[in-house]
Parts: sequence; structure tokens; C-alpha cells
Amino acid sequence: MKSPTLLDGKAISEKIRNGIASELKKTNADGNNPPTLATILVGNNPASETYVNMKVKACASVGMLSKYVRLPEETTTEELLSEINKLNADKSVHGILLQHPVPHQIDERRCFDAILPEKDVDGVTTHSFGKLSMGSEAYFPCTPYGMILLLKEYGIEVAGKHAVVVGRSPILGKPMAIMLTNLDATVTLCHSKTKDLPELVKQADIVVGAVGKPEFIKSEWIKEGAVLLDAGYNVGNVGDIEISKAKDKSSYFTPVPGGVGPMTIAVLLLQTLYSYQGKFSPPLK
Amino acid sequence: MKSPTLLDGKAISEKIRNGIASELKKTNADGNNPPTLATILVGNNPASETYVNMKVKACASVGMLSKYVRLPEETTTEELLSEINKLNADKSVHGILLQHPVPHQIDERRCFDAILPEKDVDGVTTHSFGKLSMGSEAYFPCTPYGMILLLKEYGIEVAGKHAVVVGRSPILGKPMAIMLTNLDATVTLCHSKTKDLPELVKQADIVVGAVGKPEFIKSEWIKEGAVLLDAGYNVGNVGDIEISKAKDKSSYFTPVPGGVGPMTIAVLLLQTLYSYQGKFSPPLK
Repeated sequence: MKSPTLLDGKAISEKIRNGIASELKKTNADGNNPPTLATILVGNNPASETYVNMKVKACASVGMLSKYVRLPEETTTEELLSEINKLNADKSVHGILLQHPVPHQIDERRCFDAILPEKDVDGVTTHSFGKLSMGSEAYFPCTPYGMILLLKEYGIEVAGKHAVVVGRSPILGKPMAIMLTNLDATVTLCHSKTKDLPELVKQADIVVGAVGKPEFIKSEWIKEGAVLLDAGYNVGNVGDIEISKAKDKSSYFTPVPGGVGPMTIAVLLLQTLYSYQGKFSPPLK
Repeated sequence: MKSPTLLDGKAISEKIRNGIASELKKTNADGNNPPTLATILVGNNPASETYVNMKVKACASVGMLSKYVRLPEETTTEELLSEINKLNADKSVHGILLQHPVPHQIDERRCFDAILPEKDVDGVTTHSFGKLSMGSEAYFPCTPYGMILLLKEYGIEVAGKHAVVVGRSPILGKPMAIMLTNLDATVTLCHSKTKDLPELVKQADIVVGAVGKPEFIKSEWIKEGAVLLDAGYNVGNVGDIEISKAKDKSSYFTPVPGGVGPMTIAVLLLQTLYSYQGKFSPPLK
């Protein structure tokens, strides 16, 4: 058997970021009024702080501005909506990212949906989900779209393949299932209520870990030659797939870290650039 | 083995229609300003004419008005959009149904999406699809929601079941897959690019025929005890499932005709009533 290929999210994301940076050097040479991403962090979740810091740094690295809005743990839904509305109205802001998860007292879905579709560069609104589902241009949720771009970059055929997506969150597993369907994969969407998950995963040509549980998907479940995409990033620096063993059975696999994570940020920057240019990500076909 | 139960869409739809009629007798006793459904038919597709006539009659049977807009085969997208906008603005109209399919020169998706969400009682807009996907209240596409109501009416457990949906159209198979996922089924969404469909259908606890090809899903593929839902209605009065033989292996099955078809119309009336009452269908949980 051919030895497995590592899907190098770090390298591909750098390629995307370099592309953005040189595009901006051409079209925004004086550096005035650059693309600007507003990031809202509510509360003190240390993982969220890390993610937001990475995103702020990434903006700077390609010549974008970031506007960092930090709100206290006890923020109400109304207060957060008011911040979002200010950013919606601010013409210098091209994209708005509300870092998930927000504290429990906040209606996260309502706040996501308050983001203007033209600034939803993180692809989290109900509106964007609808557009994605219909195969229209839109901003797509960054993590699943990052995985799709990895598949495209490595020329991995999706049409006619059986993909098993484990996890159905509205910004990860569910949109990934729809994207893969639109790309002509046959998709099985699994979750906490799924019975006999091992039997389903064993049939998969493409396995997507999107469940957020460390090494939940076992090496024994993986079919020889499967493509493994792991969106999990759990305590202990491990993903959702038991990758240290599973990778040897795979044809392609994403490492954790250095696989899907960097792609998420690259897509965020890419969609912020698109917003700055007044366009959306192209339809997923 | 227990003999199979026929899912009597005709009887259940009558129950729903009787409920609507008596609700309206109470709340709209004088019959003034009743709920009004506008139906747009473009062109001369005989099947579409039959469907629209059935819907117009159904409105009358429960005390609703219908407003029938008939447009010629050569109607342009702009002309159709203009008619939809008139109906959007007409306060006497509570629901708008654009009969699918429209002639090929028309951008159907654009026209669907021009329908105001509050009048989208047929559940066809991108907006409604997004809401449905997020598990929010919304108007749902009538045919899949009709199937869901049948399952509920007969107390058929969906959570943890493996559902195989054959067909991924944006108003039938795709929303049905999302609805079943939201109800905790494990869903495999199949389509024309699916390889080894028989093997997938053989695993299904619930089979949904949503492909529009006569008896495409063969009796041999059906697992003993499966629930069979057939949204197909093809030439020769047959559905998408080879039901004459397959029903004997099933635990529950929808006949064609008299199964899913009448439920579609009942849901249309129900959602028109909801619009009249200023509310949506409740979240699918």
C-alpha cells in the first residue's frame, strides 16, 4: 500500500496567507484603510483567548487590521447585540467574528444572526448556512471550508465517495455534511445519538472528526485507504481521531496540530479579504 | 412478524384539515378577511395544473381563500419577480406558493427567495432552509414536513434510527435529511452520484424515496422492519419505492397515492393558517 500523505494545513495556510499579503501589497500599497476584522471575545475562556490572539496576529501578518472587542463574562445578550450593531454600522469594519462559545446566559444564535451577512466572514449566520445549503456564493464556516480547501489542494476526489461526519454542530459538522453533499459525496451525519458508530465509520472513504472528544474515533474503525480529516483540538494536543495509529491505514490524514487549525484561520483571512473586495466565496461545486 | 401498518396520509391530512376548518369557524366566524393563499403557476405543465387545482380546492374546503395567478410559459424572471413583489405587498395575502418547476428560462431559486419569509408557507426560501437547519421555528418545506408529521402521528421513534434519504433536492431530500438529523436520526443522504445505493438502503431503519423515478428503490434492498416513506409520485401512479413488494418487509409504509401527497397539502394549509395567526411552525425537536 502507498504510504499515507500528510495534509499539510500549515503549509497550505501559509500559501493562502502569502497570496492575501501580496494581493494587499498590490491593491492597498499605501496601507491606508486596510481590510479590518473585528473580533469579539466575551468572558475569560483561556482557549478562546488563545484562538483570538492567533487570529489578531494572523491579521497583522497579512496587512489587515484587527479591532479587538473584549467584553466581561457577565455580558448580556442585549449588550452583545448592541456591540455587534455598532460593528455592523462601522464602515471601516469588513468582517465580524464572535468567538464561540459565549457564556451560557447569552443567546449565541441570536447574536450570531445579528451579524450582517456581508460582514459574516466567519460564516456563522443562519443566512450564510442557507446560502451554503443552496449551493450559492456565501461566506462559509471557516473550519469546514478549510477542510474542503485542503481536499481541493491535494486533488482528493470527493464525488461518489462515502463521507462519514461525526458531530453535527451548526458551525462544523452540519455545514461540512452539506458541503460534502454539494460536492457529490454520499454523506452520513453521525452524532451522540448514533447507534453503532464503529460500523458506520468502517464504511467511510472520508472520515471527518468534528465531535470535540479526544481520540473518540478509534483506529480500529478506519477502513484501509480512508481520508482522515480531524477538526478536533482537545486537551493534550490531540484531535478527535486516534491518529497516531489510524494514519497508517489512511491514504491522507490531517495532523493535530498543523492540519485543520491553520486552515481555519487562513479561511477567515481569505473571507475578510473577499468582504473588503465586495465579494463572497464562490459557490461550492 | 407483525404485519405492516399503512401510514394513512389521507386520513391524517383530513384530520389536520378538519382541525383547521373548525379553528377558522371559531376565530373567523363571519368569514370576512379569511386566510388567503396566493398560488402562482407559470406555463402549462399538466401535472402542475393538477397540483395547483388540488391546492385551490383544499383552501376552499377549510374556509380559506385562494388567489390564483396564472402566467404564460414565456414569462421572464423579472416578470415573475414583479408578480411576487405585488403579492408580498398585498396585505390580504398570507401565503405565497410558487408552483415548482417553473419554465427553464426562469431563475427559480431567485424567484423562490423573493418570497417574504413571513409569507413562505411552502417553505422554499433559502431563509426558511437556514432556520430549519438551525432548529428554529420556520415554515418548513411541505412534503418533508408532511412526512415528519406522519411519523409523529403514528408514534414512530426516529432518534437513534438510521435513515437513508434518496434524493437531495433543495425542497425535498435535503431538508428531509436535516429534519431527521434534528430529530436525532443518523442520516445518510444519497443521490445520483452515490455508489452502491443498494448496500446503503439495506442498512436503513427508515427509507425516504425523494428521487422522482418510478420504483427506483427495489424491494430487495429493504431491511425487514424498515419504515418506508415515499414522496415520489410518478407516471403510472407509482412512487419511488417498489412498494407493492417492499411493503411486506416493512413495519410501516406510505401508499402511493394516499400517503405523502395529501400530507403535503395539509401542511400547506396548516402553515397558511399559522401565517394568518402571525406565527411559524414550531421548532423541530
